[in-house]
Parts: sequence; C-alpha cells; structure tokens
Amino acid sequence: MNKGIGIVEEKSISLQGSLLLESGQTLNNIELVYETYGELNSDASNAILICHALSGNHHAAGVYQDEKERPGWWDALIGPGKAINTDKYFVVCPNNIGGCHGSTGPSSLNAETNEIYGPDFPVITVKDWVNSQAKLADQLNIKIWHAVIGGSLGGMQALKWSQMFPDRISKAGVIAAAPKLSAQNIAFNEVARQAIITDPDFQAGNYLKAGTSPKRGLRLARMVGHITYLSEEAMRTKFGRELKEGKLNFGFEVEFEVESYLRHQGDVFSESFDANTYLLMTKLLDYFDPADEFNGDLVKAFEPIKAKIMVISFTSDWRFSPERSKEIVNALLAAEKETTYLEIKSAHGHDSFLFAEERYAKGLSAFLDN
Amino acid sequence: MNKGIGIVEEKSISLQGSLLLESGQTLNNIELVYETYGELNSDASNAILICHALSGNHHAAGVYQDEKERPGWWDALIGPGKAINTDKYFVVCPNNIGGCHGSTGPSSLNAETNEIYGPDFPVITVKDWVNSQAKLADQLNIKIWHAVIGGSLGGMQALKWSQMFPDRISKAGVIAAAPKLSAQNIAFNEVARQAIITDPDFQAGNYLKAGTSPKRGLRLARMVGHITYLSEEAMRTKFGRELKEGKLNFGFEVEFEVESYLRHQGDVFSESFDANTYLLMTKLLDYFDPADEFNGDLVKAFEPIKAKIMVISFTSDWRFSPERSKEIVNALLAAEKETTYLEIKSAHGHDSFLFAEERYAKGLSAFLDN
Repeated sequence: MNKGIGIVEEKSISLQGSLLLESGQTLNNIELVYETYGELNSDASNAILICHALSGNHHAAGVYQDEKERPGWWDALIGPGKAINTDKYFVVCPNNIGGCHGSTGPSSLNAETNEIYGPDFPVITVKDWVNSQAKLADQLNIKIWHAVIGGSLGGMQALKWSQMFPDRISKAGVIAAAPKLSAQNIAFNEVARQAIITDPDFQAGNYLKAGTSPKRGLRLARMVGHITYLSEEAMRTKFGRELKEGKLNFGFEVEFEVESYLRHQGDVFSESFDANTYLLMTKLLDYFDPADEFNGDLVKAFEPIKAKIMVISFTSDWRFSPERSKEIVNALLAAEKETTYLEIKSAHGHDSFLFAEERYAKGLSAFLDN
Repeated sequence: MNKGIGIVEEKSISLQGSLLLESGQTLNNIELVYETYGELNSDASNAILICHALSGNHHAAGVYQDEKERPGWWDALIGPGKAINTDKYFVVCPNNIGGCHGSTGPSSLNAETNEIYGPDFPVITVKDWVNSQAKLADQLNIKIWHAVIGGSLGGMQALKWSQMFPDRISKAGVIAAAPKLSAQNIAFNEVARQAIITDPDFQAGNYLKAGTSPKRGLRLARMVGHITYLSEEAMRTKFGRELKEGKLNFGFEVEFEVESYLRHQGDVFSESFDANTYLLMTKLLDYFDPADEFNGDLVKAFEPIKAKIMVISFTSDWRFSPERSKEIVNALLAAEKETTYLEIKSAHGHDSFLFAEERYAKGLSAFLDN
C-alpha cells in the first residue's frame, strides 16, 4: 500500500563521557550504532525513539543496499504514510549497549584491557539503556522526544523513559509489555540461559577467545523462546499436526512441521546472535521492575510521569498477556496519568506487535499525530 | 487421614510370546516390572490398571522398605479407604516397555544381539503399551479390568484401552489428558528432544556404551517440562519474584527462587532418568491420536467403546487444558457413550492430577464404586 523507506544506512556515534551502571560498574568508550529515518525538523520537536526488544537491533525499517530482501524488523509500521510516519517524524533506533550488532557489547574490545569483554561485560539494566539513550539524544540535540515507542522489552524502555525523564518525553508507546516478569517468564529465561551456559562450547563465556561457539545452547534458547512468542492458536493454524512427509517415520528426524520450523529458527539464530548478549538481554528482562525503588508500589513509581501513555496489548499474547498490560494501565490511571489502552484482537501471539494490524496501526498513528 | 498401604515390593514378569509393534518391528523377551496393591477377588472382577505418565513408573503407592520417606507417585489417591480403595480393589501398576525402571527398555540388554538396545530400541506407541498391558492381564488371569485409570499420558492409555479392548474394560478414568497433542505440545517435546540429542554426551544414543551421560540435555528437558506442568498461578504463588539472597547480584548465579527450583528439579531428574527413554516417551505423546485410523473422526474412533468413561480436567492445567478434555467428552457424547465429566478447580496446573483434592478424589471413588 505505502512505499517503504528504501535504502538505509547504519550510523555510529561515540557517547561522550562514561556511563555509571545500576550495578555500580562504569562503562567507558561506548559506541552506539543506530539508524534514522525521516528528517529532524528545525526545532527538533519531531523525533521518535524506537526501542528494540530481546533479539532486535537498530535496523528497524528500510533495507540495506546489499540485502534488499530483508527489511527492518518494524518496517510494517515505520515509513512514509505508515503508523510511525517518516514524512512527519524523525525516527531514531539504536542498537542498545550489550548488543551484538555493532554497539558496545560483550563481543567488543575493552579499550582498557585490550581484550574482548566476553563474560566480563557488566550486567546492564533497562535503566542503564535509558541513560545511554539519553546521552544519544543529547548528542543528536534532541531535548525532548515526541515519543518513545517499543514492543515487549522495547515497551519497557518506553515506560522507563517516561518515569526517568518526565521532561524529555511527550508520549510513550508501551506495546506488548508487562510491568515486570512473572515467575513463569523468568523460568523460560532461565531455561534459555542454562541451555547456553551448560553448552560445553560456551567456555564460561570466553568462546570467542577459545575459538568455539555455543550454537547448541543458543539454538535451544531460541527454540524455547519461539514457543512463547507464538500463540497456541497461531501454532495450530500455522502447523497443526501436519507431518512433513505425510506419515510417521518412527524415528527422531523431523516429523511434524512445527519441529522443522523450530529447528530452522534455532539454526538461523545460532549463526547470527551472540550468546553473552542473549544472556544479558534475558537478565535485563528479569530485573525490570519500575516499582523496585518504590517498595513495589507501581502507582507511586508512576507519579513523576508527565508523558501521555498509550498501552497496547494483543489478545493471543501469552508471554505478556493483556492482563499484564492492564496492570500498567491501572497503575497509570491510579496515578492520574493521561492513558490510552488498546487491546488488539490478533492471532500472532507475542509477535503480534510486529504486524501492522489495521486497528493497531491506526491507533498508534492517531496517538502520535493528535 | 487414611493409613497408607505401607511397605510394597516390586514384582517382575516375562511376557509370553512376542509383541508386534505399530512400527512393524517385533519386540521379544519382554520383562515388565510392576506393583500390586490389595487382593484380587475370586472371580478376578476387582482389578484396576493404573497407567503411568511421561516420567512415571510402577511405584504408584506405598513405600519401599529401604526408602520409607518416598511414597509412590499416586499414593495420595491409592490406598485403604482412599479414592482408589485397596480394601476393595486389586490395583496393578506396571512400568511400561521403553521405561527405565526395570521393564524392557533402551537400557536393557537385547537378548538377540547381546548388546544394550540404546538408540536401537524401537519407537513405541500407546497402542503398543496397551497391547503389552493386555498380555500382562492375560498372565495375571484378569479377563476384564474393573477400571483402567491414568493421568496425562496415563489417561491416554486408559482411553486407548476402552477403544482397543471394549470387552475387557468396564470403566476408564481419563484424567488431565487430551485427544492428541497440539502443535505447542509437540513443540515443547521437540525442545526437550533437541536438548538431549544435541548434548555431546548423548553420543547418538550410545552413551551407556561410551561411558558418558547426557545429563545436561536431560536437565534442560526436565526444566522446560516443569514449566508446562505448573500453572503460571502456581509458579506465582510458589515463587513470585522472590530473590534467593534478597538482592540482585548482577550475575548469572541463581537469583530468583524459581531458578533454584528449576535447576534442582533438572539436576535430580538428570541423575535418575534415562535419556533414550525420555525421547521415546515424548514421541509416544506426539504420536497419540486415537482417531488416526478413522480419518481424524474422533466420534467414529470412539464407536467401539463399551466402558463407562470419566473424564477429569483441572482449571489451571495449560498443558492439557479443560478445553482438550472437553474435546474427548464431546466426541464420547456424540458417539452416545456413557460419560461423566468433572472439571476440578485447582491451582497446581497439570500436576493437579497427582494431588487428592477433595472433589476430585470423591468423584473418582464414586465413579469406581457405583
């Protein structure tokens, strides 16, 4: 329907100064890679920050010159005339620190030791990410974000932005998120971590130095992750109990379509993602709790917020179900914040936030534009 | 409240003849270990077959002389005056073939080759199990089971019994089961299988010969399994987001209580269960489909049934939810079978079938006794 953004290029920036992390450690010489779409207006009032999720990165929209068949992860929603309209807005999407797509992370060289960080890269938090993104905003001369938006872990960053920098954000889009992880969420993350850590090729995190690669562990982590991203309904519709060869083969090769899908997803991911980054991302999720400094009182935690907040959930999302979004909404309302809530009927499970379902896309654009 | 069964001993029996498996292979020299509780009456009309689930075995009730602190897995429901009343019934519980607790399985010696079966043990099905249990019944001179009962995969066996041997079973107790696995169920099984198979110590299934043990894989398989056995609510109630040391430690050691629980469950299991057996059990689940010979028509598949059937589900079970049990019930009713359905409110998730919740226990005993 709409033309896309077209060819995009990644940019890179060195953050000035150091970043004091929530763990007490300090991170220096931070490089962030990022992409931008659209043009910043003269008073820098049209900037939108896009925050990526667990396995996401800065390539949110458009295509690379040499990889035109693979648009960015949120290309369905970002572009000229799209929900996040690049004819109006200047969109910025960084790869967060700790990542493995160019920003300073576990596979980067630690300038102080001249060694790869590996397992010594500090455990970071959503708060640390928001602080690093604020530095990026400073250096891009963006004083106030028109909006900060993200899905899943990205939505958590948007929420944290509104809490930490109430004067620097006008609107927050908190999509398919939760106020904090449930025991079950943490349990799935722990299985993923244990899969990676117990892979003999993990080498206590020093696999780059050792010349190994914990692909088995990453593959399993991704497989279990994928089950939680898709709804049971989506899996049923997509795969049912279809047999790849039309008959049982009484063996342990791929038999059901869903097995083939999971193995493929796991294989691809294990070739392209960094194991230490995956560990960090899951910890970051586990630790997220905006009420942690407020004795668990989410209403109190939300008191500083000045931004208008749109919370969006998806009916078939069982990773972060609509009930979890409503916890955020209820606390925002109790704190008397300007809140819009949209529950979208969708069969794609947690992944629904990636698709431009009509009511979702229109709701988001109306929220941004009005 | 009720006294238990007390000390029990396992028995062993050699099945006569060979067993033609659904895969087309033949299994000879089958040994079954089993336990019995109560006394068989003179006309052998009070016998109840208990079918175990994925990781279960023949030790369903009572305690062993040298292990008095560990009662059988269904001790809450089997015993004098209990739901399955051993004052009235003669209860038989075998370890199924393919198992790893004494019955012929992958870790047994293949008498024909004088080698451990290992990965060469044939893939078996619920139908094969029922056929082996029918042989056991023959040799125990039990022509008709008063009832066949089981939870989860055990319930599937009870259902299959009623379909395959309509004249040899008066009642079937189909508890916390499903008519067949969903794509999501299969997906979880596949993650477990891949965890085991990709463990370098699995050695293509020949770990006993190689002197290795794929504990890492089994541990992960059990961890992911446990998430599906507990309800989200049960996990929240049991663990919440409680921190083991009361504070975040910004590392990858155990932090949350739920992590500690899962690791412990995985560790214990990986020390006591056989990896090839686990693979077989998950395949057995994936393959289960009583309608497979009836073009997917469950009503037609149920036509031969003569037994009275009680289907029981648990509200918090998301592995095999009440909706799945209702599929069985609806097909039974459409086939005009005598059917009772009980949906029990319980917070224990899939594991609920192991606990003697009052309405559940009373419902089951009324069904057996009336």
